[in-house]
Amino acid sequence: MEALKVGVIGATGYTGEELVRILCRHRQAKLSYVSGKEERTVRIQEIFPYLQGAVDLECRTFQFEEALGAADLFFLSLPHTVSMQVAPQFLAAGKKVVDVSADYRLKDTSVYEKFYKTAHRDTVNLGSAVYGLPEINRERIRSARLIANPGCYPTGAILALYPGVKAGLFDEQGIIIDAKSGVTGAGRKADKALNFSEVNESFKAYKLFEHQHVPEIDQELGAALGRPMSVTFVPHLLPLNRGILSTIYVRLRKDVTTDDLIKVYADAYRGEPFVKVRPGGALPELRHVAGTNFCDIGLRVNPGKKLAVIVAAIDNLVKGAAGQAVQNMNILSGYDEREGLWV
Amino acid sequence: MEALKVGVIGATGYTGEELVRILCRHRQAKLSYVSGKEERTVRIQEIFPYLQGAVDLECRTFQFEEALGAADLFFLSLPHTVSMQVAPQFLAAGKKVVDVSADYRLKDTSVYEKFYKTAHRDTVNLGSAVYGLPEINRERIRSARLIANPGCYPTGAILALYPGVKAGLFDEQGIIIDAKSGVTGAGRKADKALNFSEVNESFKAYKLFEHQHVPEIDQELGAALGRPMSVTFVPHLLPLNRGILSTIYVRLRKDVTTDDLIKVYADAYRGEPFVKVRPGGALPELRHVAGTNFCDIGLRVNPGKKLAVIVAAIDNLVKGAAGQAVQNMNILSGYDEREGLWV
Amino acid sequence: MEALKVGVIGATGYTGEELVRILCRHRQAKLSYVSGKEERTVRIQEIFPYLQGAVDLECRTFQFEEALGAADLFFLSLPHTVSMQVAPQFLAAGKKVVDVSADYRLKDTSVYEKFYKTAHRDTVNLGSAVYGLPEINRERIRSARLIANPGCYPTGAILALYPGVKAGLFDEQGIIIDAKSGVTGAGRKADKALNFSEVNESFKAYKLFEHQHVPEIDQELGAALGRPMSVTFVPHLLPLNRGILSTIYVRLRKDVTTDDLIKVYADAYRGEPFVKVRPGGALPELRHVAGTNFCDIGLRVNPGKKLAVIVAAIDNLVKGAAGQAVQNMNILSGYDEREGLWV
Amino acid sequence: MEALKVGVIGATGYTGEELVRILCRHRQAKLSYVSGKEERTVRIQEIFPYLQGAVDLECRTFQFEEALGAADLFFLSLPHTVSMQVAPQFLAAGKKVVDVSADYRLKDTSVYEKFYKTAHRDTVNLGSAVYGLPEINRERIRSARLIANPGCYPTGAILALYPGVKAGLFDEQGIIIDAKSGVTGAGRKADKALNFSEVNESFKAYKLFEHQHVPEIDQELGAALGRPMSVTFVPHLLPLNRGILSTIYVRLRKDVTTDDLIKVYADAYRGEPFVKVRPGGALPELRHVAGTNFCDIGLRVNPGKKLAVIVAAIDNLVKGAAGQAVQNMNILSGYDEREGLWV
Repeated sequence: MEALKVGVIGATGYTGEELVRILCRHRQAKLSYVSGKEERTVRIQEIFPYLQGAVDLECRTFQFEEALGAADLFFLSLPHTVSMQVAPQFLAAGKKVVDVSADYRLKDTSVYEKFYKTAHRDTVNLGSAVYGLPEINRERIRSARLIANPGCYPTGAILALYPGVKAGLFDEQGIIIDAKSGVTGAGRKADKALNFSEVNESFKAYKLFEHQHVPEIDQELGAALGRPMSVTFVPHLLPLNRGILSTIYVRLRKDVTTDDLIKVYADAYRGEPFVKVRPGGALPELRHVAGTNFCDIGLRVNPGKKLAVIVAAIDNLVKGAAGQAVQNMNILSGYDEREGLWV
Repeated sequence: MEALKVGVIGATGYTGEELVRILCRHRQAKLSYVSGKEERTVRIQEIFPYLQGAVDLECRTFQFEEALGAADLFFLSLPHTVSMQVAPQFLAAGKKVVDVSADYRLKDTSVYEKFYKTAHRDTVNLGSAVYGLPEINRERIRSARLIANPGCYPTGAILALYPGVKAGLFDEQGIIIDAKSGVTGAGRKADKALNFSEVNESFKAYKLFEHQHVPEIDQELGAALGRPMSVTFVPHLLPLNRGILSTIYVRLRKDVTTDDLIKVYADAYRGEPFVKVRPGGALPELRHVAGTNFCDIGLRVNPGKKLAVIVAAIDNLVKGAAGQAVQNMNILSGYDEREGLWV
Repeated sequence: MEALKVGVIGATGYTGEELVRILCRHRQAKLSYVSGKEERTVRIQEIFPYLQGAVDLECRTFQFEEALGAADLFFLSLPHTVSMQVAPQFLAAGKKVVDVSADYRLKDTSVYEKFYKTAHRDTVNLGSAVYGLPEINRERIRSARLIANPGCYPTGAILALYPGVKAGLFDEQGIIIDAKSGVTGAGRKADKALNFSEVNESFKAYKLFEHQHVPEIDQELGAALGRPMSVTFVPHLLPLNRGILSTIYVRLRKDVTTDDLIKVYADAYRGEPFVKVRPGGALPELRHVAGTNFCDIGLRVNPGKKLAVIVAAIDNLVKGAAGQAVQNMNILSGYDEREGLWV
Repeated sequence: MEALKVGVIGATGYTGEELVRILCRHRQAKLSYVSGKEERTVRIQEIFPYLQGAVDLECRTFQFEEALGAADLFFLSLPHTVSMQVAPQFLAAGKKVVDVSADYRLKDTSVYEKFYKTAHRDTVNLGSAVYGLPEINRERIRSARLIANPGCYPTGAILALYPGVKAGLFDEQGIIIDAKSGVTGAGRKADKALNFSEVNESFKAYKLFEHQHVPEIDQELGAALGRPMSVTFVPHLLPLNRGILSTIYVRLRKDVTTDDLIKVYADAYRGEPFVKVRPGGALPELRHVAGTNFCDIGLRVNPGKKLAVIVAAIDNLVKGAAGQAVQNMNILSGYDEREGLWV
C-alpha cells in the first residue's frame, strides 16, 4: 500500500509539534509537508532538534497551492477562526482534513458566535463535519472527509461522563466538572500571564462558567442523552506542562455501588484501545498518562450521599489533541488505530 | 511588658520551622526553647541557616522538665496522638498550649477514634480546648488555655463556607469541596510517594471521602448551622510547595446574585485582618497568598443553575498552620493580632 | 525622627514589587509614591492583593512633577537606558536616587555602549555614582546621592571572589563563574522563551561570554586587585522562581587548605549582617536564601589540583536587587542596616 | 528470526521502568521476564498503568532459577554491589548481561573499593566486561557477553570530551565539568532530602570532588589520551525530573576557533545515530533531549582566553541509562541500533 502523504499546517505550536513527532514514527502515513509561523524557511528538524534523523523537511510559510500538491490529508493546527477559511479549500480539492481547532465542533452557529466572537464562515462543511471522538463516533469517522478533533477539556470530560449519562444514571442537572490543566493547553505564545514565574508555585481557577469548551461538552452529552444538557465547568491552571485531570461530581439517580458503576464503564469501553477504566476504585494520576494517548478513568460512589466522583486523566497534547487527531486519521485511513501511538 | 517566653516542640518539620521563622521576627514574644528530631543537639540556626542573626538557640531532644522551665507558652507541632500525651503535662503546670496537631480539634471522641485509629487519651482537656479559628472563635480564644489550631484544609474551607452557611443561603446537603494542596501539607518526611519525581509534573486526587479533615469541617459548620452537616471533600496533591486552593460548589437556597453573596461575606469579615473577600467576582490565586497569613475568598453565582462557586486560597503553612497559631497566641496574649505576620 | 518618604518608580515588575513589599514593613521609611506600567491608575494593593492592609497607594503612570513632590528618595526600577534619563532630574532637584537598573554601574562609557548598545546620556552623574555593594563600599554609600545598585549575578559573584582576589590567593586569569539563575531574573514580561512550558523541565546556558554583567564583575574585582581582570562567565536558566547559585572555579596561587580559605573569608565578612560564610566546607542551597537578603558562601579546596570551588547563593530579587537597594537606603539614611530585611 | 527474549531484573526503579517501556515497543526483542521490589506479585502493567495493552507480565520477586529459564539476555537494574553477585550466575549459564549498575565499569578494583566502599567480588568477569559507550567501543560491544552500561554523568561528559582529548586539543590537567542533573538520577526511593518540597524551588552542588562517577570519566578519557587523567567534577541537583546538562571548561593547547572545534566533533561523530553536534555555536537545552536517546553537544571557543566551553545534554534515564542499555543490546544482537529508540 502506498503511504498516505500527510501535511501539518501550523507545526510550530505545541499541538503541531506533537503531531509532527507522532507522525515521524508512524509506519504508514508519511509526513510530507509542514508549515509554521517561523519568519524564515527553516527545516523542521532545526526548530525541534530531536527530530534530526527522524524527518528532513522544510517548515514553510503556509501557501495553499504549495501545500495542496504535497499531501493527501491535512491536519489543521491553526487558531480558531483561521481553520474555517482554509479547510473548505482543501475539501473542495478532494483532500481530507482533521481540524484541531474549534471551528467545526459546534453544530449550532449561534453558540459558536457567542463563544468565539465571530460569525461562522463555512456552514456548508460544518454540517458534514464529524466530531472526532472515536469512542463515540468511530463508525462515522471511518467515512468522514472532515474531522472536528475534540477540545482537550471535552475529551476527558465526555469520556468520563458518557456511559453514565447514556445509561441514565446521573441527574443531568447537577453535573460539576472541576478540571485542572497543564500550561501547554494555553498554547506556545508570548503572554505575561503564562510567564514561568507567574504560573510556577501558583494555581488558580479561570473563565468560570464561560469557557469555550462548555458548549462542546453540553452538545455531545446532550446528544447521548437525547435532550439538552448544561454542565457546570470550572477550569484551573496547573503548574506543569502536560495533562488534564478532571474531578467530576454527579448525583446518582439510582442506588449503585462503586463496583456497579465501574462495571457500566468497563462494559462501555471494553475493547477500546485508549480508554482504561481503573479497577476497584483506583484513581488516575497525570504521571501515568503523560506522553500517552490514554484516558484513564477512576470511579467512586459515596452511597450515603447518592453521589459519584469520576476522575479522568489525559495528556492534553496527545489524547486531548495530536494523538486523538492521529487516531482519527488511522480510523479514516483503515490503519491499526494504535499505529504511532505507543507508549 | 516582659516578653512572653515561648517554646516550639517539634521545630524541624515544615510547620515547626515556619513557627520558628515567624517567632524570630515577633517583637513581643521571645522564642526561648525549641526541640526537634535531630539526632544530636545542634543549634536551630545551623539547621536553618537563614535564621543566623535572628536567633541563637539549641534545638534539643524534647525533655519535659527542661522545656517546662524554659517558656510560658508552648506550640506543639507534634504528630497526631503525641500531642495529647504532652499537652496535659504543660497544662497541669500552668502553661498555655497551642496544639498544631489534630488531637484537640474533634469534640466527639468516637469520631477521633474513627479517623485517627486510636482512642483519645485526654478527654479532660479536650472539653475545654478552643478551636482556634479567630474569625469565628476570637472571644473564646482570648481566655483559652489550650488552643486546638485548625487543620490546613478546614481553615480555608470553613472560612469560605461559614458566612453563607450561617445565613442559611446554602443547601447544606450538597456542598462539594474540591481542594488542592501543595506538598508541604504532607510534612517533611521520607516517603517514596513524596519523592520529587513522583509528584513533579503529576497531579492526583487522594483519600476520597475519607480524609481526616472532613469531620473537622462538618463539626464547625454544623455548629454554625445548628444541626449536623456533611460535606463532600476531595483533596488533591499539587506540584508546588505551599498553598491550598479550594473550589467549593454550593446550591443556593435563595435567588442571590454574585454581588449579593459578596456583600454577605464582606460584611461577615469586615475588620478581619487576615480574610480578604475579593471584589467584583475576582478569584484568588495561590501566588497572592503564599508566604502570608491571608485567606483570600472569591465568589461567583451562576444564576441559571442557582449555584455558587466559592474559591478560597491560603498558605497551608501560615494561615493553615503556623501563622494561625501565632495569630492565636497574639489574641490570647493581648498583642496586636497581626504582630509577626506581615507580608 | 520624621519618616523618610520614598518612591518606587517601576513598581509592577518583579524587583519593583519586591521593593514595595519590603518598604511596606519598613518602620522608618514610608512608601509615599509608586508608579508602574498599568494602563489605568489602580491602587497598588489591588495589583498585589497581599499588600491590602499594609499599604494604600495609587499606582500612577509616572510623571516627574507629581513624583517629585511625593518623596525624598527614589528607587528607579526602570529598564536600562531609561534610568539615566530620569535620575538626573531627581538629583538636580536635590533628591536621592537608588538606581536598580544598570545605567550607573559601569564607569567606562565605552564598555556601557558595547554591552547596552546605546551611548551613555548622563556622564556627569555617572562619575559620582557609588556602586552599592555595602560589603565593599559601605563608607562611600553613607554619603552617596546616587547609588548604582549592583546587578544580580555580580552581587553573588563579587562577594564570592572579593576576599580571595584582594588577598592575592587566586590566579586571576583563570576564574570561571558557572552561574544559574531563576526565571524572575529575566523580568516580568511577555516572551515566548519565558513561557512556563518552555522553561519548566528544561535547563540551558545562554549569552555565553557576552552577558552584560561580565564587565561589572571585571570592574569591581579589578578595582580590588588593582589591575584589569577578565572572568569567564556562563549563565544558565533554572526552572525556579527565585535565586542565583554560582559555582566558581579558581586556581590557587598558594597552598591553602579549605580551612585556610574559609578563615580568609570569615575574617573578611566578620560583622557583615548579610553575608554568611558556611563553616567546615558546607555548601549553600537556594532554599536557604530564597526570600532573604543573605548571600551564603561555601568554599572547598582540592589540594591536589591547587583549585578551589566557591559556591555563592543569593535571592536574585532580594540581595540581588530590591533587598540590597533597601540595605543601601538604610546605610545612606543612617538606619539599622537590617531594617525591613528580616527573614 | 526468532525474537530475543529479554528480562529486566529490577524493573520498578526509574531505570527499570524506562527499560520496560522501551522494550515494550521494541519489534525484535521480547520482554519475557521482569522482577522488582514489590512485596506481592503483581502484573507490571498494574504498577505502571500506561503499559496496559503493551505488555502483560507478572513482576516477580527475583529468583535466579525462574529468571534463568525465562530469557536469553538480562538487564540488571540493581543497586551497586548487588549486580556483581547476580551477573556471574547468568554469565556462567551462558546468558548475556547488560549491567546498568556501576559494578563492572571500573577496571581498577582498588578504585572501585574506594568509591563503593566494598571489595569487588567478581574480578573474573570484570576483566572481560566491555564499557558500553557505543560511540567509543562499538566493535567490542558487538562480541561482548557482559556490558558495563555507563553511568549517567559519565555518558554526557565523556561524549563531550572524547574527540578533543583524543585530538590532543585540551590541556588535560585543567578540565572542569560543572554538571546538573534532574532528580530521577537519584533513584526512586524514600529519602527526606529528595522530598518534593526540599528539591523544588532549590538548587545545590553536592559530592564536590568525590562523586563516584569521577573515576569512570578519568578511566575512559585516560584510555583515549593514553595516560592518566583527572577531571574536576561538580554535580548539582536540578529541580526537574529528567536530564543532565554538563557545562565543561577546557583550556586549549592550540589556537582553534569555534568552527574548528565543531568540525573536529562533527567529524568524530559523523554517522552516529544518537550524538548531535549543534552547528554554529548553538547550545543544547534539556527540553530538546528529554525522553530521547540523544546526546546534544554545543561548543564555543573564547579565543582571547584560549578556553572552550562544551555543553552536553542527555536524558539521564535514556542515553544515560536505559536507552543506552537497549542501544547496547541492539548492537550485540545485530539489530538496527536505533530500534525502539525513536523520539
